[in-house]
Amino acid sequence: MAQLIKNLFILLILNFLICYNTMAQSDSSRIRHTVAFKLKHPIGSSEEQDFLKAVKKLASIPGLEKFEFMKQISKKNPFDYGISMEFANQKIYDQYNNHPDHVAFVQQRWLKEVEDFLELDYEIKITD
Amino acid sequence: MAQLIKNLFILLILNFLICYNTMAQSDSSRIRHTVAFKLKHPIGSSEEQDFLKAVKKLASIPGLEKFEFMKQISKKNPFDYGISMEFANQKIYDQYNNHPDHVAFVQQRWLKEVEDFLELDYEIKITD
Repeated sequence: MAQLIKNLFILLILNFLICYNTMAQSDSSRIRHTVAFKLKHPIGSSEEQDFLKAVKKLASIPGLEKFEFMKQISKKNPFDYGISMEFANQKIYDQYNNHPDHVAFVQQRWLKEVEDFLELDYEIKITD
Repeated sequence: MAQLIKNLFILLILNFLICYNTMAQSDSSRIRHTVAFKLKHPIGSSEEQDFLKAVKKLASIPGLEKFEFMKQISKKNPFDYGISMEFANQKIYDQYNNHPDHVAFVQQRWLKEVEDFLELDYEIKITD
């Protein structure tokens, strides 16, 4: 009986270690957050330029890495621009989403001036 | 009259130089080609694994740089996976599109096994 309890205890410890490792890996997965979008403003207008300036200001929110603003050039979708950024893990991504500057930008600019958009978030493998 | 011809000739040369410069810039723009997709196969099935192996083989096509295969994790779109790759310019991107391995992959696998997909192509600025 003592041996059985010992074995069960060892199994429990092993199980805990495997679970913990999986959770830690999941939490540490790097995330590339991308958004393709099309504005209500005409291309080249001062309203568009002003909006894009506000988008680029998001790059200074803490935790945001590798910010890219890009022209979208495929004719196979309706979007004119794209942004891409990376976060070290889901927690830092959540902190960005809840940051007052991001919340204010979404409420005051994004919801009013964007005609159409699509978010794609990718899990980035750090090891090859 | 000779002066007018001379001026017109200078304008023609200037025009040619501006056009050539614009074309050269456009041709040298780096492109990030991305495709988000969802397969007809169940997640974790051997058919899915076989398809993903075939996708990853595309990475060896000449001219293709920075190939990435990623899990798509946002719930705000229907896609499960994404691939990203870069080309030094539009000409090399076209060569990839027309490469026999790519053409065969699209005909024999992509069109039959993919349920839904979206292509987004971004112009990458080389200078910051």
